[in-house]
Order: sequence, then C-alpha cells, then structure tokens
Amino acid sequence: MAEPQEQSKSALKKAEKQAKMAAEKAAKAAKQATLVVGSGKKTDDIIGITVKKSEDFSQWYQEVVLKAEMIEYYTEISGFFVMRPASMYIWSVIRKWFQERIEAMGVEETSFPMFLSQKSLEKEANHIEGFAPELAWVTKAGDKDLEVPVAVRPTSEAVMYPYYSKWIRSHRDLPFRLNQWNSVVRWEAKQTTPFLRAREFLWQEGHTAHLTEELAGKEVLEILELYAGVYEQLLAVPVVRGRKTENEKFAGGYYTMTVEGYIPSNGRGVQGATSHCLGQNFSKMFDISVEDPNEKGKHINVWQNSWGLSTRVIGVMVMVHGDDKGLVLPPRIAKIQSILIPVGLTAKVSAEDKAKHIAKIEDLHATLKAAGVRSDVDLREGYTPPWKFNDWELKGVPLRLEFGPKDAANDVVTYARRDTGEKGTVPIADLATKVPELLETIQQDLYNKADAAFKEHRLVIHDWEKVVPALDSKNVVIIPHCLQGDCEDHIKDITKGEEDLSIPVGKRAPTMGMKSLCIPFEQPEGGLVKGETKCLNPDCSRLAESYCMFGRSY
Amino acid sequence: MAEPQEQSKSALKKAEKQAKMAAEKAAKAAKQATLVVGSGKKTDDIIGITVKKSEDFSQWYQEVVLKAEMIEYYTEISGFFVMRPASMYIWSVIRKWFQERIEAMGVEETSFPMFLSQKSLEKEANHIEGFAPELAWVTKAGDKDLEVPVAVRPTSEAVMYPYYSKWIRSHRDLPFRLNQWNSVVRWEAKQTTPFLRAREFLWQEGHTAHLTEELAGKEVLEILELYAGVYEQLLAVPVVRGRKTENEKFAGGYYTMTVEGYIPSNGRGVQGATSHCLGQNFSKMFDISVEDPNEKGKHINVWQNSWGLSTRVIGVMVMVHGDDKGLVLPPRIAKIQSILIPVGLTAKVSAEDKAKHIAKIEDLHATLKAAGVRSDVDLREGYTPPWKFNDWELKGVPLRLEFGPKDAANDVVTYARRDTGEKGTVPIADLATKVPELLETIQQDLYNKADAAFKEHRLVIHDWEKVVPALDSKNVVIIPHCLQGDCEDHIKDITKGEEDLSIPVGKRAPTMGMKSLCIPFEQPEGGLVKGETKCLNPDCSRLAESYCMFGRSY
Repeated sequence: MAEPQEQSKSALKKAEKQAKMAAEKAAKAAKQATLVVGSGKKTDDIIGITVKKSEDFSQWYQEVVLKAEMIEYYTEISGFFVMRPASMYIWSVIRKWFQERIEAMGVEETSFPMFLSQKSLEKEANHIEGFAPELAWVTKAGDKDLEVPVAVRPTSEAVMYPYYSKWIRSHRDLPFRLNQWNSVVRWEAKQTTPFLRAREFLWQEGHTAHLTEELAGKEVLEILELYAGVYEQLLAVPVVRGRKTENEKFAGGYYTMTVEGYIPSNGRGVQGATSHCLGQNFSKMFDISVEDPNEKGKHINVWQNSWGLSTRVIGVMVMVHGDDKGLVLPPRIAKIQSILIPVGLTAKVSAEDKAKHIAKIEDLHATLKAAGVRSDVDLREGYTPPWKFNDWELKGVPLRLEFGPKDAANDVVTYARRDTGEKGTVPIADLATKVPELLETIQQDLYNKADAAFKEHRLVIHDWEKVVPALDSKNVVIIPHCLQGDCEDHIKDITKGEEDLSIPVGKRAPTMGMKSLCIPFEQPEGGLVKGETKCLNPDCSRLAESYCMFGRSY
Repeated sequence: MAEPQEQSKSALKKAEKQAKMAAEKAAKAAKQATLVVGSGKKTDDIIGITVKKSEDFSQWYQEVVLKAEMIEYYTEISGFFVMRPASMYIWSVIRKWFQERIEAMGVEETSFPMFLSQKSLEKEANHIEGFAPELAWVTKAGDKDLEVPVAVRPTSEAVMYPYYSKWIRSHRDLPFRLNQWNSVVRWEAKQTTPFLRAREFLWQEGHTAHLTEELAGKEVLEILELYAGVYEQLLAVPVVRGRKTENEKFAGGYYTMTVEGYIPSNGRGVQGATSHCLGQNFSKMFDISVEDPNEKGKHINVWQNSWGLSTRVIGVMVMVHGDDKGLVLPPRIAKIQSILIPVGLTAKVSAEDKAKHIAKIEDLHATLKAAGVRSDVDLREGYTPPWKFNDWELKGVPLRLEFGPKDAANDVVTYARRDTGEKGTVPIADLATKVPELLETIQQDLYNKADAAFKEHRLVIHDWEKVVPALDSKNVVIIPHCLQGDCEDHIKDITKGEEDLSIPVGKRAPTMGMKSLCIPFEQPEGGLVKGETKCLNPDCSRLAESYCMFGRSY
C-alpha cells in the first residue's frame, strides 16, 4: 500500500506475492493458536495482530481483514477476494439502510445482464476510453468462439441506456429512477487491496433521468448526502463533501460530486463514493428524449445521473478505527454488539455453582436481547477468559461484558469498551438501558475521534514550500487552485518523491505525487480573493478558481 | 415453448427472432395505446394481450411478461433478459422471506468471486462434465490475453470448496453454512424463455457442511420445505415434493430433492427448485475433513449440501395464474395489492365536487395503508376508467376498488377481484378489515384453483397404452418404474411424437418425449407391490422400484 499508484508489472507481482505470503502467515498463526489452545497452553499473544498499525500499516491492514475473518484472498485468480460473513453482515446493514431511503425517494429496483456489447459501449467516446483498458472479455462459450465477444460490465450506463430510450416516452415518465445491487469487474493493473481496490466488487448503481438540469442536480446532492450518511451515521467515519475536478470526474459525465475520507495512519485521502450528473451526454448518444411539456413538438434530451457506493466503505472503516489488537467495529454495524464472557470460574467453583452461574449469564443475555442489543455469549470450553478477550477484540466487538462470581455477588456486570479499553461496572438492574447507552456513546466517540484527526490533518496552505512537508506529515492540503487539468498533472509530478530502493517494497514511505481529491463545498473563509489569488502551483501562472483539496490517495 | 427440448441451431435462431418480433409488436401496441389515449379515443382493447392463453400459450406468455413490464428482452446479446421493477419487487419479497428463515437456521451470508479457475473446476469429474458445455470463458482483459482463461461461475461448488477445506478445521466448526445471492451464467444452447431458462439468472446458492449423512439429509429436507413454502405460501403455486432419479440428479452430487410444478395450459412439468446432498464426493476431492470427535486421529470427510432457488419461480407463477387479460398476482407478492380508481366523475360533476370526491379517495387510501394494505390510487388525467381498469388488470393487481359519487352516497366502495372478476361492495366503515380479508381469500383461492388443476392432471397409470394419450391431454403421469437411467432414456425416445412441419414453429403441439420429474415422497396407495409390479416401460424387463412422476417438461 505504500507503493506509487502506477505500478510496473513486476512490482505488482511482487506485491501480490507478498500479500499471499502475509495471508498464509496469518492463517498459519491462527491454526497454531487453535492447536496450542487445544493442548491447554496459554496463547494470548499468538492469535493477535503481529505488527503495529503505526509501524507497518500495510501488513497490519492485511492481517486485520484476514484474522477478523472479513476477507479471504482468492488465490485461484489474483486481484479477487472472498467476502466472509463478518464483512457481508456490514454490507447487508448498509444495503438495508440505503435501500429504505432510496425507495422512499421513489427509486425502483432492477437487474440488467452482466454483459455488455461493444456496440453499446462505443456510443459514448470518453466513457469507453475510461473503461476499455480494464474490461474482461468473454470470447468463448463451451468450446465455441462467440461470434461477437462480450465484456463483463465495469458499470452499467451502456448496458441500461438503450432501454431508457425505449421506456422513457413522455415527460410524465420522469423522474425515471432505477437502482441495482450487483458486482462489477474492472481488471485493474494497479495493485489490489482488500475492499479498497479489487477486480470485482459489490456495489449499488443508481441510474436516473430528469426533465431539467436543476432536478438532476438536486438528486445528485440528495444521494451524496445519503452516502455521507453511510459513512458518518453507520460507519462513524467523517467525510468531506465536494466536487471532483474535470481531471477526476466520471468518464463521459458532466460533473461528479464526491465524499472523501482520510486515513490517519498514512495521511492518505480516499474517495468514499461518487454521485454523477451525466448531463445530456448519454441521452444524446442513446437518444433518450421526451416532448417538452411547455412546447409541443420540441424534444428535450433528458438529464441523467448515475451514482454508486461500493464495499470499499468497509475497508475505509477498518483502516480508520482499527488498532493494534485488531478490528474495532462501530456498534451500529456490528453483528455482535456485546459479548458476554464468564470469568472467575476457577477449579474451586463447584459444578453446581458453575451451572447456576451460567444460567444467570443466559438471563443477562436474554435481557440484552429483549432490549434490542445484538448480544452473544461465549461459553466455549477449553479456552481461557484472556484468550476469549483477545479473540473478540481481534474481531472488533464493541463491548465486552464479563461476569464472574464477584460480579454476581455485587449484582453488577463488568464491561470493557473495545475502542478505549475503559472498564467499569453496570448494575444488573440497569443493564437494559445502560448497555444501549454505552453502545451509542462508543458510536459517537469513534466518530468524534476520527473527525478530530481528519480536521487536524486537513491543512489550508498558502505557501507552496509547505505542501510536500505537510504531505510527509500525513496531511491532506487545501490550496488555492486554477482547477485546470494540466496543472493538476504537473502538481502530481512535482510532488513525487524519489523511491528509496534500498528499503523493501511495502516498508517504503509514500512517495506518490498528490492528486486533487475534491473542491470542498465548504471553502475556507476569507483567504481566496477571486481574480487576485494565484494558483499555488509555482509553475502555474493562472489565477485560483477555488480552494481544492489535494493529497496522496488510494 | 412448444418446441422439442433439444433444438437445432437454426430452430433456435428462428425462435429467438420470433420472440424479438413479439417483443417489438408488444412495444408498438403499448406505444400506440398511449398515443391514442392522448388523443382522447377509447382504447380499451389495444393495451391488452392480443392472443388467448388457451390458443397460443407461448405468445401469450411473452406478451404478458413484456406488457406487464416484468421483463425486457436484452436485444444486444441473445438469451439474456432485463428484470424490471415489476418482477424485481417479487424477487425482493421472496429474498426477504427466505433470508429470514435461513438466518434463523444459522446460515450466514457470503460473497465469492464470479470467476472460476479451470483447476478447481476439474476436481470433480461429473461436475465439470455437467457444466463445461455451458461455460462462458473470459480470455482477455483490456487488450491483453489472460495467461490462464477463467470461466464465469455456472454454480459455485468449485469456487467455494477450496476455502471450505481451509476454514473447516474441527468438528466444532460444523455445521458450516454459507449462502450467497448472486447471478450465474449458463450459456445454454437450448431455447431461452423469460424467467424459465436464461443464460444469466438471479438465484441464491447455499453451501453447507455437516458431520454426518443424517445431519446433512435433515437440512436437505428443511430447505426443500422452504422452497415449497416460497411456491405455496407466497406464489400460491402447488408443488410436488420428491427425489430426482439418478439420471436427473445434480452433476457430481449424491442425491437431489426437488419441488416440481405443473403448467395447466400445456400440461408440462417444471422443476421448481432443488436441494442437493453432495455426499462426500466434493469433500474428498477438495480435502474437506475434520477429526472424528469419537475417535482421536481418525479423519472424516464432511457431508455437504448445496441448494438453490432462482428467479424461475416468477415465470412459473405467471404461467399458472395469468389469464387472457394479463398477469394475475397473488396478493402476498404484489407490490400494489389494491388500486383505487375514481369513477363516475362525468362532465356534469362540478370542479368543487370533483375535488371533494378525490379528497375522499385519498382518505380511503390512507385508511388502507394504515391497515397494512399496499394500496395505490390512480388519479391519472386523460385516461378513462375502463382504460385504467384494463391497465391494472394487465399488470395483475389483485383487487380493484372503484369509488364514484353513487358509492359515496351509499358509504361503500365497489370492488372487483382480479382473479375471478367477481364484483361487490364493502362498507367504508369495514374497509380496514374487509380488504385484507378479501386479499387473503384471493391468495387462498388462487392456490386452491391451481392445486385442483395439478391434482386433476397428475394421473396414476398402470397401462402403457394410456401414457401418450394422457400426455397429449396435458397430464403428467405417475407410473411404476425401475428408476434406471437407460430405461428413462428409452422412455423419452418412445414417447416422442413426429413433428408436423406444416405447422409454424411456436404453433405446433408438444412433441417432446417425457422425462422423469421426480419420485414423489407421497406415493400412490396400494398399487405397487415391490418384487412383483413390473416397470411400465413395455421394453423394460425390470421390476418397478417406485412410482415415478414423468411428463413433458421445461
């Protein structure tokens, strides 16, 4: 993850090999842990993460997603990943939350084929240019060559819009809004990273048509706000809302709005999700028009949007909240929000007392479930409490509830917060109210902590000399900029560092150039005087159009 | 649909061309209807289905799924279909119903890549033999050839099981149960039909592992009962539960359980959904084993199941319930359960009275929604009530509620049932209880009618001479059979009719041979004496093992 964005093929292979080795190492460690526990030894340190987040972020991330059982590397075909139940649960919560909200907006569900014909794809020139290098082509069925090869969709504009032309016949059909949940394939040459960049990923793609630019624009922002909601309200991850520059907008679109996240550990920006206004580009190419309701006989090409949110969100969440013990899950998306673990059941406790104690724990579990808490109990035999603590910490469960004979005597449950490690007790009588409150506090605290980190590392800079040092100190920068593509390209070049080849791949400090992340809706106050303030690029002679957020990024 | 199952390539092309022409014809008719209505003419008969279900079932079906806006032909690539909101809604109801139930069983969600390596696929010989002819091969990415081509999954046994080998390490990991909702690709040479047979279709695939044959077998039946529930409880379609013969079981599996449906219009059987026990075939090939909990050091290969339910269910429902006016939806899966339509608002009614009347209708709508009815109101201007009636009948809405000044005067709403056409009135005061009751009655009546038709056309036959006439009279037959594959093949041959080439394709009577549908769990009483009753095939000298259900089928 610390490599420059454009990889040579050999560097890519090296990185993949490394990733596989890490995966195997992790699996071995996990297996060993099970075996050792089976033979009764203490193994607290074996199942955990073997590197510190601050020391080798790339390795740390790979271990977390593997050991928390979110991901499996699909070793059969490189660049693909298996999403295991621990991550699919999160995706299903997000899906439900988002689906309810777009349904309320009147968006309906559809399912188009996964294959795309060359003919449709070619209709929008910029669009095909953007996606052609990453298309997977089916050329054979059984043992016969297809007469015309077909591509697996990288996105569905060219799959769907021939039918929009057929279905949208009157302005009364507008707004016309469809969404589908599926997977798309982009055969990337760049290094892949679980969740963040994969050759196949799950997402939703909404495709809508409107009578006017204004109506389309309104929806673009409504959807963007839902995307921000997924990050902020569910995943406890702060984002900056903004507009992409011409260089970074969707291939073939009119303009792109985005939510941008930030990874404190390496100071990189990360595109969160994008909501595009396609303008009339596609509707002209695919002949999607209606009669003007205000002028008989006049035809208007519809204004279109497309918007997508992918499983990338899960990776961002892991990177932001995780720590040296493993995953840290915000309670709202955690399948298990609190885990009850019996403690203090030493050899001195009689079998009868043990059984009574376990029965009490089951009561506590029932109380929590009745209070709407996604509670579970860990009654596994043959594992020590500390081993169980580590196991659930690794898996990110927000709240650990310990219950021993001493707790029982005092009518309390002892808790430990996953995010802060803070411990305390809750009277059993208050369990049904206090645990939900604690979970909500954890949710808010996770967000606040991440928000503070992002705010602290979003530097408004007016002096070019400070830009690269700021990047090297893990900041993203907000600078006055002319918003021209050639200037962005040049900035990427002059902010690149030299690669220190003596350091092994994966351990090297980031040396990639910075690119524009977005033009934030919320601009710094004062500062930029339009028509006076210069673009900060020292080699650019143009005036600044706006503050633009730049950074090294995923 | 009336063609023999094995098609020559030219016949296939002809059939596809015909389907496309039907699609275009339907679209034209719909467009014309809109235009004519726009100009104020009465157009009751134009938007409807142009052929009778009893006269040209194939054409009828194509028109219904197109005009009810369930399906669009994907003309870019043959054999693929677009699922529009009217059908995706049904799938989402089924998905939710089934997902809740398998979650309660402890099945977790996963998502594996869509691509399959040749190496994994080859591990189970019968499995690859079954699927190889229909595999879609990706051989290129961008403009580069892949070093090793990859296939799009036709089902995911070979995708998933290498990881089951890795993840299942102890008998404590069992039962191990994963499910995924996705689409699969089977590049069929056979004629495709919307929902029933497509080159890509949506489904769920469950893949589980168990310690013993007994535990695996128990789950196979639990899932089969859920599949029967989707048909019977949601879609109001009766099914026969049974076991597939060796000839018809899943490629590479141990045994297959199935629910089989029946299409009264042409007397064909249709496979509903299948639940397979894979035995230890795959676990041996993929090395999935655990230590025997009862014998240290001894390893047991796990017992595996796989089970799938696809969007085919929607096609069966359409075929069973639809009529000459179009789609008929069972209330439980209808997005709109009742449609309120204002009537009697002639030119004599003042604008003020009209507004008051419409406000009353909105009140009725609110009452229904509060009662949990998925209600909608049709206030479209420029359409006559009869046109609206036809439109909602075409789309299958179970209950039409008419409300005119006369109804208002009598404090009633007039209803018309979609399934029977029966009309009546409901006092407004009783709306919140009577409408849900009516909907439930419609649901039950639809099931009962279909169940009676299936029962009537499931003939137990002991005289070979009666078999073909029974098929020709749109029956499926239950006959004593030896359950041997060669005998089944022979039966298929000797029950084939000659094709009457003078009749146009699509109009010809069914001439396909019959195949075994299942060995029904519920066997006819008495009749078969094991060791005495002969297999009914006159050219077979073996004894009958069981009654087996045969029929012409999809």
